[in-house]
Amino acid sequence: MDAPHRPVDVVTIGHAIVDVLAPSPDDLPAAYGMDKGTMTLIDEARAAELYEALGPAVESSGGSAANTAAGLASLGGSAAFMGKVHDDKLGEIFTHDIRAAGVAYDVAPATVGPATGMCMIMVSPDAERTMATHLGAGALLYAEDVDAERCRQAKVVYLEGYMVGLDAPAAAVAKAVQSCHLGGGRFALSLSDPYWVNLKAAALDALLDGVDILFGNEDEVTAMAGADLDGALSELARRCDLVVVTRGAKGSIVVAEGTTIEVDAHPADHVIDTTGAGDLYAAGFLYGLINDYKPSECAELASLAAAEVIGHLGARPQTSLRAAAATAGLLH
Amino acid sequence: MDAPHRPVDVVTIGHAIVDVLAPSPDDLPAAYGMDKGTMTLIDEARAAELYEALGPAVESSGGSAANTAAGLASLGGSAAFMGKVHDDKLGEIFTHDIRAAGVAYDVAPATVGPATGMCMIMVSPDAERTMATHLGAGALLYAEDVDAERCRQAKVVYLEGYMVGLDAPAAAVAKAVQSCHLGGGRFALSLSDPYWVNLKAAALDALLDGVDILFGNEDEVTAMAGADLDGALSELARRCDLVVVTRGAKGSIVVAEGTTIEVDAHPADHVIDTTGAGDLYAAGFLYGLINDYKPSECAELASLAAAEVIGHLGARPQTSLRAAAATAGLLH
Repeated sequence: MDAPHRPVDVVTIGHAIVDVLAPSPDDLPAAYGMDKGTMTLIDEARAAELYEALGPAVESSGGSAANTAAGLASLGGSAAFMGKVHDDKLGEIFTHDIRAAGVAYDVAPATVGPATGMCMIMVSPDAERTMATHLGAGALLYAEDVDAERCRQAKVVYLEGYMVGLDAPAAAVAKAVQSCHLGGGRFALSLSDPYWVNLKAAALDALLDGVDILFGNEDEVTAMAGADLDGALSELARRCDLVVVTRGAKGSIVVAEGTTIEVDAHPADHVIDTTGAGDLYAAGFLYGLINDYKPSECAELASLAAAEVIGHLGARPQTSLRAAAATAGLLH
Repeated sequence: MDAPHRPVDVVTIGHAIVDVLAPSPDDLPAAYGMDKGTMTLIDEARAAELYEALGPAVESSGGSAANTAAGLASLGGSAAFMGKVHDDKLGEIFTHDIRAAGVAYDVAPATVGPATGMCMIMVSPDAERTMATHLGAGALLYAEDVDAERCRQAKVVYLEGYMVGLDAPAAAVAKAVQSCHLGGGRFALSLSDPYWVNLKAAALDALLDGVDILFGNEDEVTAMAGADLDGALSELARRCDLVVVTRGAKGSIVVAEGTTIEVDAHPADHVIDTTGAGDLYAAGFLYGLINDYKPSECAELASLAAAEVIGHLGARPQTSLRAAAATAGLLH
């Protein structure tokens, strides 16, 4: 990294992905060997085959941690994203969108190797999403791509679980975590997906004792702990200072300093596409956290951010979350 | 054209465009010298400059006549689209989406010349759209790209006004109109845009006596006739068998065989983005027409299709219009 970059409160690290979202019949995932509601990794040939079968789509920048950074910026927070695109059309779209969202993004695009990552998302009539991801350039984030100084200055470095257990980004992740802790910041991990938690259990477990803040949904935390929800909460709270569990329409649970609180979901007018709900929940929670909100207030802001993103196709906010949060009286 | 193509009821002809839709503050169009609600043609350099200023966006296949074909297919009609993309990523997206919508699309992509056309659309908080279009490959539709046999077999050949008054596609348009009339089909024209009507008044006027069905909004028909609405209706009805005028929330007016009827707009739950409203109105109307519905029934179907598309970002239906029309009791 040459020039010094502006410091930010939160650095998020993950796959740089452009989503291809298609309203789809309930049975399309099964017809392609996928379980509804899950994420499957696919190669380029399979991606082409699946795209052929997919209905008319909308393209929208995505990537779990990138969505979280966009959500933070929409709330008025300062965030940077670290993830890799290729120097191609989708890479250009990804770069435009994340910068236009107000997120600092300075990772150089790859000029060799695979194309920018994409995720084909079948959105069922009940708003559930089934994802087939071709990671492409996204998986090739190297240590040299990580701005250690920015990680050192951040209050939180947030990692999406999808980056854990892959060979290429391991050094990048280690560098980011180390820099964060050196600077006195907190390291946050999102578990991303129950399938991924099972697939990469050892790598996630090895990382866990360094995790200060853990995000996951019910399926992910129970898979991670190999226990029921209560067992998972106590096991994970033993290892991480703060454990945050999302439960869809049932709201969320926060375990902080020995205290467990439950917070209702924010009412959603109409639910179109749940893609990005967890990412935006994390955005709202982190915004509260870095601004010293109480855990319950963090969770309320989180729920509001999640409610916005499930109201339309696509995993990034389409309206100002700051304005919505102010209207709802959730900002200090 | 080598192999014979399946015959369709409606052929639509226009620019193949991928829309880049960005929720934008009210004053962004003016800051870039554009009038809110209008369309401006821009070159590649200006497109890059404007994209830089644009907020986070969603990409969705567009193009006025292509949207109409997608709407027809969503209602269960058979449609083909003729328009030109380049052999690039946006061209691939456009081709996927129109075929996945069930529209026949067999125009070969260009391998030389400009990139696939794109339209940057600033969507204001009041759902109004301001468009900056880089036509790219879209403007380069040649006579050899037009399947005369398909036009001859169609009940309706529908042209977007944006194709009129450009040098390159003039021969393609003439071939399509001639083939349509030779086969006993009706030729429909959409006026597209009041700015375009003023810019290309002579070319549109020269075409008008061959037009059987004319679509336009209030601003477009008054610009075309150089008269107020009543004057425009009588002047245009003298020259075209069927004149259909859309008036946004005020509904629409149909003049057919000396009779004028007014139809209310379909109630819309929430209005997010009016892009594509006119295109989908035309889709619903044409679906009724080719199935021998009464003019008032055509207009009701048209209004329902328009109401769907203004409920989300993007100019193509995201739900089945056929199912919605059946639920509303509008299908025979």
